[in-house]
Amino acid sequence: MRGGRRRISVFAPASVANFGVGFDVLGAALDGPGDTLTAWLTRAPGVRVVSISGDGGRLPRNPRLNTAAVSAAAVLAELGGRRVGIELSLEKGLPLSSGLGSSAASAAAGAYAAGLLLGERDRLKLLGAALKGERAADGSWHGDNVFAALLGGFVLVPSSDPGGTLAPVSLRVPSRVRIVVVIPGLELPTRRSRGVLPRTVSMGAHTAHAGALARLVLALSSGDLPAAGACLLADRLVDPKRLPLVRGGRAALDALLDAGAYGVCLAGAGPSLVGLTEESRDAERIGRAAVVAWKRSGVAARARVHRIDRRGTRLAGTRA
Amino acid sequence: MRGGRRRISVFAPASVANFGVGFDVLGAALDGPGDTLTAWLTRAPGVRVVSISGDGGRLPRNPRLNTAAVSAAAVLAELGGRRVGIELSLEKGLPLSSGLGSSAASAAAGAYAAGLLLGERDRLKLLGAALKGERAADGSWHGDNVFAALLGGFVLVPSSDPGGTLAPVSLRVPSRVRIVVVIPGLELPTRRSRGVLPRTVSMGAHTAHAGALARLVLALSSGDLPAAGACLLADRLVDPKRLPLVRGGRAALDALLDAGAYGVCLAGAGPSLVGLTEESRDAERIGRAAVVAWKRSGVAARARVHRIDRRGTRLAGTRA
Repeated sequence: MRGGRRRISVFAPASVANFGVGFDVLGAALDGPGDTLTAWLTRAPGVRVVSISGDGGRLPRNPRLNTAAVSAAAVLAELGGRRVGIELSLEKGLPLSSGLGSSAASAAAGAYAAGLLLGERDRLKLLGAALKGERAADGSWHGDNVFAALLGGFVLVPSSDPGGTLAPVSLRVPSRVRIVVVIPGLELPTRRSRGVLPRTVSMGAHTAHAGALARLVLALSSGDLPAAGACLLADRLVDPKRLPLVRGGRAALDALLDAGAYGVCLAGAGPSLVGLTEESRDAERIGRAAVVAWKRSGVAARARVHRIDRRGTRLAGTRA
Repeated sequence: MRGGRRRISVFAPASVANFGVGFDVLGAALDGPGDTLTAWLTRAPGVRVVSISGDGGRLPRNPRLNTAAVSAAAVLAELGGRRVGIELSLEKGLPLSSGLGSSAASAAAGAYAAGLLLGERDRLKLLGAALKGERAADGSWHGDNVFAALLGGFVLVPSSDPGGTLAPVSLRVPSRVRIVVVIPGLELPTRRSRGVLPRTVSMGAHTAHAGALARLVLALSSGDLPAAGACLLADRLVDPKRLPLVRGGRAALDALLDAGAYGVCLAGAGPSLVGLTEESRDAERIGRAAVVAWKRSGVAARARVHRIDRRGTRLAGTRA
């Protein structure tokens, strides 16, 4: 049996997605807490989730519903044949439903761990399996969070079809980039947040947003963060529709900008906010300004400053 | 009087725009023929067009209708005051209505020549004036051709509002890039070509095209021409609607691809075609393949291979 009884542990980072004009096509992996998945091969076919910790008992162990297990099963189906199985032990380091790509991290970890056990180390070959895991969580076919968690960096996802002609690409952004994430004590169901978006856009709005997204990825790649911030603020289609759903969201967003963030956007479908800044600016102060503004609206919030995680999902340990 | 009787000549290159998913936001300056504009200051206020050659008598000398004169007048209004005027002599090196940005070249030349005479050498300060000239030709407010002619290179135009927050940016593309332009003996009025475009697009089509455009500018910047070609071919909104208006267009496009072009698109609003290739591939042969295909449809065509012009509009000579 390949891999014997070797146990491997992989780490998958948090991620944020959407980034204003990057709706559904841009994500970024964040340093700091993440999910750790330990996996080993078994003689019994199929995938089993042996344990989950750190989720407060909320995540399913049913392998057809658990994102890490679904990803691992997709890799197993392709590479493992019928005479081998995988068992998983998941330590959640990311809070659920926080806009930090919790399900995406588990899905990326499941695909990568199974790939390592079965001899596939090329992350680009694991995109499809990771996306299947992410889909198990929310039914969406968008790869912006999960591809960022898997590949690391700022990731442009021109198409979420892993077999398509336009593969995701990780931008080389300078290490001085800082992402301020501000998480309020509010719930905003993704379904409601998607429901307020327009179904169609005018040709003029389309070209303006497409141009702003293209400018954004160039600005991120070249490290021109003021230009990148201006591109985030060019969004007229997504965040302006969603922000009114978030109590105190406008005031918190304005506070981020007033405190010196180059640009701001909702994290994923909200309600958390993201501010773009860099090492030389006082990112902690920028975050505190938003927390104070939210508090004035009667909403408790917490802020955290992240670097970009450039490594993506990776091996964290091996035990024979 | 600033500039005395000094006569300056400026050269403005050809350009192509649209590039499939880059509709209305991407243009490129091409080496080869272009427009040459000679200009000098006069004591009589206003702008006058003294002579035009190479246009077969088709272009207006009326300074309110001539693109070079309108651009020059816009610069004069801003920098020259009322006690000085400009006279222009235009040599058209670009055929009219060929999709090669003939009016854009004249507009860029008018703005740049007036800028030089009046002490403004920063091309980014001349964008608004150049756009006014381009508008005199076709009434549009799109800067993709004229900003490419003025700035040189592949130019992303996220907003055609020169006072907007997102300025155009010229991509650094490798010198080995080659653009094959195939011009058929057909007329396709821009109004008709615009008329077949959808007025609105679905959110899904919007994000797919925006992602493909962002991938395209990254691929051009990094010199990944096969990826850039795949992005050109991802267009579902613009060229697929227009191509049926061009007799033999589909066969000619397929011929470009079969002969080895990485990607193809219509030049501007058509009917000319553009193929993307590079130095190491036989660009002349790629062009001939399209000419042969068009001939089979009973359409005479000619092909020319261009490098990217990286210098944009520039001084060509000075005479005291």
